[in-house]
Amino acid sequence: MSVKLTFLGTGTSQGVPIIACDCPVCTSADPRDNRLRSSVLVEYGGLTIVVDCGPDFRLQMLRAGVKHLDAVLLTHNHKDHTGGLDELRSFNLMERKPVNIYCEPYVEHSMRQEYSYAFTEPHYPGAPEWRVHNIDGAHPFKVHSNACEPTLVWESAKGYHYERPEFDGPVTEVEIVPIQGWHHKKKVLSVLGYRFGDIAYLTDMNLIEDEEFEKLKGLKAVTINCVKRTGHFSHFSLPEALEFFERVGAEQSYITHMSHMLPCHADLDAELPANVHPAYDGLVIEG
Amino acid sequence: MSVKLTFLGTGTSQGVPIIACDCPVCTSADPRDNRLRSSVLVEYGGLTIVVDCGPDFRLQMLRAGVKHLDAVLLTHNHKDHTGGLDELRSFNLMERKPVNIYCEPYVEHSMRQEYSYAFTEPHYPGAPEWRVHNIDGAHPFKVHSNACEPTLVWESAKGYHYERPEFDGPVTEVEIVPIQGWHHKKKVLSVLGYRFGDIAYLTDMNLIEDEEFEKLKGLKAVTINCVKRTGHFSHFSLPEALEFFERVGAEQSYITHMSHMLPCHADLDAELPANVHPAYDGLVIEG
Repeated sequence: MSVKLTFLGTGTSQGVPIIACDCPVCTSADPRDNRLRSSVLVEYGGLTIVVDCGPDFRLQMLRAGVKHLDAVLLTHNHKDHTGGLDELRSFNLMERKPVNIYCEPYVEHSMRQEYSYAFTEPHYPGAPEWRVHNIDGAHPFKVHSNACEPTLVWESAKGYHYERPEFDGPVTEVEIVPIQGWHHKKKVLSVLGYRFGDIAYLTDMNLIEDEEFEKLKGLKAVTINCVKRTGHFSHFSLPEALEFFERVGAEQSYITHMSHMLPCHADLDAELPANVHPAYDGLVIEG
Repeated sequence: MSVKLTFLGTGTSQGVPIIACDCPVCTSADPRDNRLRSSVLVEYGGLTIVVDCGPDFRLQMLRAGVKHLDAVLLTHNHKDHTGGLDELRSFNLMERKPVNIYCEPYVEHSMRQEYSYAFTEPHYPGAPEWRVHNIDGAHPFKVHSNACEPTLVWESAKGYHYERPEFDGPVTEVEIVPIQGWHHKKKVLSVLGYRFGDIAYLTDMNLIEDEEFEKLKGLKAVTINCVKRTGHFSHFSLPEALEFFERVGAEQSYITHMSHMLPCHADLDAELPANVHPAYDGLVIEG
């Protein structure tokens, strides 16, 4: 099954440029040095899926012209990956249905704390409508088109009333393989990567245990995070990312979640091995 | 004391355009119909102040070229006004100090829930560093330059260590007058507007009690919210906004927090009274 992955953002938690920063990377004229927060759009088996929903989600959707969304997969609960979940209200409004979100139970717990108004009963008019599906790193899971029943989205005291059109198309589904990683070497925070056919997208890790590499065989492309050249307490350094790529042995390898502490895109690309590249916002890879 | 107010965003909670919307306003070629979430930059008495810190805060700071920030004033606790508070980390990093935030106690309560990682001890490396000042609608308050002591911002296990440069300039201060409003006619949710000299900025209200109008006399400019033409359960309609403007009697009046349900900017501007205008992102007014 073919897969097309578009990088919607390739920056670290503050994005590049950083507000008020005058460094050479933050002031670079190369548009590839403008990095929104890390996220990818995955078109897979007829479904439209986004991995992570950070603070730039609205801009990312407008820029990529996304008109329909089947699912959002979350890697972990940090703000730069979940800060845009409120923006899914636009899809509620335009598609007249809840948005399916797939995440670990602890991520849902954070969502219930940080977006408590989305979980109140009765539903606050205009609040996001989500359908949260719990997953874990040990079990592949299926994502369906139109996975939710045709319920009312919301109805306010003033009489807003959205009914979903009857769905009469075929329900398609794809299987996705989660890859278990950790954001700190001490395994404090679980992070899920995802494999879609021959492409795997992983970010925000600095520990991946041996058995997970079994899931990463035979890839056309793989992505991993690297914030800066040398050690970071919760992200891979550049040598660690290169070691990961060599071990996985994908045809092409991409780094994402980059900060202004890495060189400008062109300089970094020039120094990397031939089949390793910095990703950039808008880059499309196919598998 | 002169004041300069720049509209950083003039859109309702989803912004304009809405993701996936093909309506005439959302597809307008007029840049004034592109509205980020409502926020203003206020340059007042030598201080740089932002009112509200919504999901577009990073983009707004980059677009306006803001390099220094003395204070953030919050109007209320809704996500389209507080969703960008994490982005203040950039100012922590660049200015080596906490950011001063002024808000009602209930807004701080929401912040503690939605950004719990900013309030943990010991401070998580890289988490936002804020200094929260509680205010209320009944009392004018003062905002100072460099209102915080020269403390360490953060220090991580890996040895990040930022020290603030010694501050040796004069400490200036300005007085700001809060205006008490309500987001629902039943007074469910308190919202503060702010008067800076001869300019007042109010948004997200649909009830302002009689006594507050005393604070709005003699203004050169005033701003109020209007999401759409007819009734909304928590925002002023267009006739209500016009009634408010007439009662205040400012020299110039501006509407903000607009949705795609209002006409395109040029059409709306043409139909409004001569001294009433839709605001737009980037508009500057001076008092």
